[in-house]
Amino acid sequence: MNNKLFALKAGQRYTISPHLTLEFVRSQHSIIDTVFPVLHTPRGAVVYANDFKLDRTPVLGEPPDFARLRQLGKEGVLALIVESTNVSEKGRCPSEKIARDLVRDTITSYEDDKSAIFVSTFSSHISRVKTIAECAHEIGRKPVLLGRSMERYSSAAEQLKLVGFPESLSMFGNRRTVDRTLRRIMKTGKDKFVPIVTGHQGETGAILTRIVMGDTPYKLERGDKILFSAKVIPNPMNYGQRYLVEARAKMAGVRIFDDLHVSGHAYREDHYEFLHLLNPQHVIPAHGDINMTGSYAKFAEEIGYTLGNDLHILRNGQKVLIT
Amino acid sequence: MNNKLFALKAGQRYTISPHLTLEFVRSQHSIIDTVFPVLHTPRGAVVYANDFKLDRTPVLGEPPDFARLRQLGKEGVLALIVESTNVSEKGRCPSEKIARDLVRDTITSYEDDKSAIFVSTFSSHISRVKTIAECAHEIGRKPVLLGRSMERYSSAAEQLKLVGFPESLSMFGNRRTVDRTLRRIMKTGKDKFVPIVTGHQGETGAILTRIVMGDTPYKLERGDKILFSAKVIPNPMNYGQRYLVEARAKMAGVRIFDDLHVSGHAYREDHYEFLHLLNPQHVIPAHGDINMTGSYAKFAEEIGYTLGNDLHILRNGQKVLIT
Amino acid sequence: MNNKLFALKAGQRYTISPHLTLEFVRSQHSIIDTVFPVLHTPRGAVVYANDFKLDRTPVLGEPPDFARLRQLGKEGVLALIVESTNVSEKGRCPSEKIARDLVRDTITSYEDDKSAIFVSTFSSHISRVKTIAECAHEIGRKPVLLGRSMERYSSAAEQLKLVGFPESLSMFGNRRTVDRTLRRIMKTGKDKFVPIVTGHQGETGAILTRIVMGDTPYKLERGDKILFSAKVIPNPMNYGQRYLVEARAKMAGVRIFDDLHVSGHAYREDHYEFLHLLNPQHVIPAHGDINMTGSYAKFAEEIGYTLGNDLHILRNGQKVLIT
Amino acid sequence: MNNKLFALKAGQRYTISPHLTLEFVRSQHSIIDTVFPVLHTPRGAVVYANDFKLDRTPVLGEPPDFARLRQLGKEGVLALIVESTNVSEKGRCPSEKIARDLVRDTITSYEDDKSAIFVSTFSSHISRVKTIAECAHEIGRKPVLLGRSMERYSSAAEQLKLVGFPESLSMFGNRRTVDRTLRRIMKTGKDKFVPIVTGHQGETGAILTRIVMGDTPYKLERGDKILFSAKVIPNPMNYGQRYLVEARAKMAGVRIFDDLHVSGHAYREDHYEFLHLLNPQHVIPAHGDINMTGSYAKFAEEIGYTLGNDLHILRNGQKVLIT
Repeated sequence: MNNKLFALKAGQRYTISPHLTLEFVRSQHSIIDTVFPVLHTPRGAVVYANDFKLDRTPVLGEPPDFARLRQLGKEGVLALIVESTNVSEKGRCPSEKIARDLVRDTITSYEDDKSAIFVSTFSSHISRVKTIAECAHEIGRKPVLLGRSMERYSSAAEQLKLVGFPESLSMFGNRRTVDRTLRRIMKTGKDKFVPIVTGHQGETGAILTRIVMGDTPYKLERGDKILFSAKVIPNPMNYGQRYLVEARAKMAGVRIFDDLHVSGHAYREDHYEFLHLLNPQHVIPAHGDINMTGSYAKFAEEIGYTLGNDLHILRNGQKVLIT
Repeated sequence: MNNKLFALKAGQRYTISPHLTLEFVRSQHSIIDTVFPVLHTPRGAVVYANDFKLDRTPVLGEPPDFARLRQLGKEGVLALIVESTNVSEKGRCPSEKIARDLVRDTITSYEDDKSAIFVSTFSSHISRVKTIAECAHEIGRKPVLLGRSMERYSSAAEQLKLVGFPESLSMFGNRRTVDRTLRRIMKTGKDKFVPIVTGHQGETGAILTRIVMGDTPYKLERGDKILFSAKVIPNPMNYGQRYLVEARAKMAGVRIFDDLHVSGHAYREDHYEFLHLLNPQHVIPAHGDINMTGSYAKFAEEIGYTLGNDLHILRNGQKVLIT
Repeated sequence: MNNKLFALKAGQRYTISPHLTLEFVRSQHSIIDTVFPVLHTPRGAVVYANDFKLDRTPVLGEPPDFARLRQLGKEGVLALIVESTNVSEKGRCPSEKIARDLVRDTITSYEDDKSAIFVSTFSSHISRVKTIAECAHEIGRKPVLLGRSMERYSSAAEQLKLVGFPESLSMFGNRRTVDRTLRRIMKTGKDKFVPIVTGHQGETGAILTRIVMGDTPYKLERGDKILFSAKVIPNPMNYGQRYLVEARAKMAGVRIFDDLHVSGHAYREDHYEFLHLLNPQHVIPAHGDINMTGSYAKFAEEIGYTLGNDLHILRNGQKVLIT
Repeated sequence: MNNKLFALKAGQRYTISPHLTLEFVRSQHSIIDTVFPVLHTPRGAVVYANDFKLDRTPVLGEPPDFARLRQLGKEGVLALIVESTNVSEKGRCPSEKIARDLVRDTITSYEDDKSAIFVSTFSSHISRVKTIAECAHEIGRKPVLLGRSMERYSSAAEQLKLVGFPESLSMFGNRRTVDRTLRRIMKTGKDKFVPIVTGHQGETGAILTRIVMGDTPYKLERGDKILFSAKVIPNPMNYGQRYLVEARAKMAGVRIFDDLHVSGHAYREDHYEFLHLLNPQHVIPAHGDINMTGSYAKFAEEIGYTLGNDLHILRNGQKVLIT
């Protein structure tokens, strides 16, 4: 294809045709600079809300544009296509601020420690990487990003000026430079660095996995720390791989800290607030298997929607005619 | 008995006999003004450490006296009697600061809401009560403590000048005044108050339970909020009672927020740090059934202690001779 | 209403109108004498299959009529309305024969024991009650049914000649006769009886609950046995009530045996077999909330049905037009 | 070493020295021909009871020698060293008869099926292998043992005349003959055989794993069946590996049946009966980490033993002096 590419920022609109306009409304998620795409039609707006949370105290960027969302609700939302991932979680999704405090409390409590401090998180989670790097800086250690995806995401975000890292931060992507850096850390002193690495799911070939398996120049010792700023993606294979990595690390006397993390997906009461802001005529839960979309449907029925009437469970490729 | 009572503050010592001195070292826990009692004997110090956490950013009072603990470790600790409650929890126990942020994020996100906001927490958890009262104040609502134990603990703490509450706070303990207050709230407007109430475990007769069961002048309505700043104490009866309360509340259209809470007990890595600070010759895990003390024993064996040698599992009333 | 009542047996048909005939096909479930109602229409048969299992070795009655089900599949089934309760359970639902062996193995292993043996099960589960009564008889004890529903279900089944119990069995329904019987057991000797009682969910007022709470003339002692031939219906309130009953019983030194039970509902592979027998054009999962019907839908999609096409999730009262 | 080897059968004794006699008492477990070794000393008998269950209806061999155990209790047991594996499981461990009925009910329900039926179980569990082979024979299929350990254990048991298999059974251990056999089954017809294979834990390199991964001449198809007559040994790595095997098999349309199994280890009430039979002066829980031995200690304390007095938790290599 040879379509033109436009850059559309949060808050901006693009006229597609006389009857269709696309608008981007500011959102928040575990990746940076996210938006709710809104398609304005003659019959009302169609809001697409997958991968979002209603974070009032984000670490990067502004909170979601609550004022515009409320206004959309008043103008009339024909349909809301909405993620159902965490609708079964009670209450509200904790803010990224909570994750920052968890990470910070742990890292800074080892200010006087001479052991290694490794942190593994999602490479795409730029605000988290920034938090970790800043905490490293705060206790006088150099943050070092290690791993192909770590390097790719963070350098892209930095080049787009979407994030600023501490000046002492460095990053290395390919295996040769990663191993050379690990050798340098062993020589210079473990207590001079906080390596931020791939491997929180115990993936074969990821940096943390290779280190733990003894497959790099780095030697783990009694008292070294590994912080997981991520949760295990719930799936028995991930649990198995992660268990293996932790078990090996413990055999070397390493201390484990996990779940220094919050979700990037709206919880049940965020969805409740969201429905009240937008007041959509029709709701289409998405982004999940039928157990998730079904749970959203149960939730929406409690609020007053009716399955098959103004609440629709669709499969990929299916169409619904809204009249 | 007719023994004299002494007030001993954290940091002070009391000479019991020529060979025995009692010292109080500042600690942190989910109740205020806690200490580690340390008994100095000719053979070394005996440290008693039940009900504590190593909170570096507490909401009330100062962090534990790490400097003195480190010094005790250097002077020589003969024996440590230590709680084992949360030794199976990975990592470090989150700071009370995290609980404050979770509570604050939730309450303040309903600044413009007209519905009720109830919060239930442990009556004895004064710093939490203070947090909730301050958040209520911040969104322009009056905090009202309701329930016999709520009134007793908080008024005692206030009289001892261990805590300062917002001036708008009021408290009512007995059934008659509680019900009168609830009637007044119904008249004045639900959106003028944040009642802080007993009943987070769904206990029969507690304020929240009575409200939910329709046994007070207060009427719950669609959109009212109940925040649990507590976790269910793990026991099937509590789960059952709490479930019943939540189920009834949901039938009235109430929104539930739970687990706005952190523990008051040291986690595994807090114990690791604690052992390294004190370096005790003997360790006696306590404050838990044999599954808990057994888990602590496993943890201590990994670090180098040996069960039956310098690590002792005792039952209430049993003695161990340390030579 | 003044409609006539017909008795229709498994294997029989009833002509409702020139175009509609009702047929009953033999089934199996945790209650006796169950059938699949089949409505024959000009467009094909509509099979209604709620509350069933494909038990090839039942304790009462014959296995389901597999031959007729297979034949229906060949004649053409327009629609199957089918329970979804246990579709998430792997494999096949164990036969009632397994429950009988579990109960029998436990009871007969106490042939020489002098302590009490109580058994609690579902009053409506006549084949289970029969099993328990026969095992009691086998070790030389008299089976005694206690509790209002116990008496009602079992006496009805006996009068309808749907079951035969050992001659030594007696049954008592109301509180006065139950308590008198318990007093008699205390006098005559606990080792002469196996009381079969209500209360497996820890229900307040049920016989077992009253006995455990000390609210009858019966005194529990060290070594007495309570067998639960039922599982806790999954709901936190039931778990709580049951826990309370077990905790109290244990304080008296009573030994607990639970889960001497199998389900009465088809598992995933029973559903697989059932779909292959009937080969229905349309499938409508029922008898469960949307998480259960949703799970059935996932299962049916793996086999080749398509949601919204020949697979329909309906709410009570909704209609679907099959063309 | 050059020590002489003696064969000592259940029921026999061997005089070691003037004061020490070794006796073997018949037991039951998931391996064949197991015994309780009993060391007779001048101070009483020392009974060693690891790896046992009190199965009254075993599939191979006789039930445990209850009469002799009771007699030992009367003669005087100084100490019992006893497994603690399943002491937290309520009730009694189900008999191997239950496993046989579960396996038989599943296999025979596919008597007319043309698809594959694979069964995987513990190679060392000879009575289970016998059950599976007999069920295969019963529906007119040839049982084929595949896998190195399958072949080794079963051929040894057969040569020692500890088991008799159906005549149609064959077994193949090494990779070449296994693959050749699988090719032959593909040619002759899947419905002519029941392969009994290694791989129930999803182990890399085991027969079932190789088949599912497409690493043998065997092609899995829609409707083929895999029966797991084993439970997953609880460990996240096993769950992960097993999940992977099941997920791959399901992608090919294979139907999964798991947990056609019972444990080989005594449950809580078996331990209760065992203590009452032997009435030991001292009890030493073993065969488990401190959480298991601790759970046994809790159980024994409820019955009247006292930790540190007549109940001892020891670590490997530790000694206790019983006086």
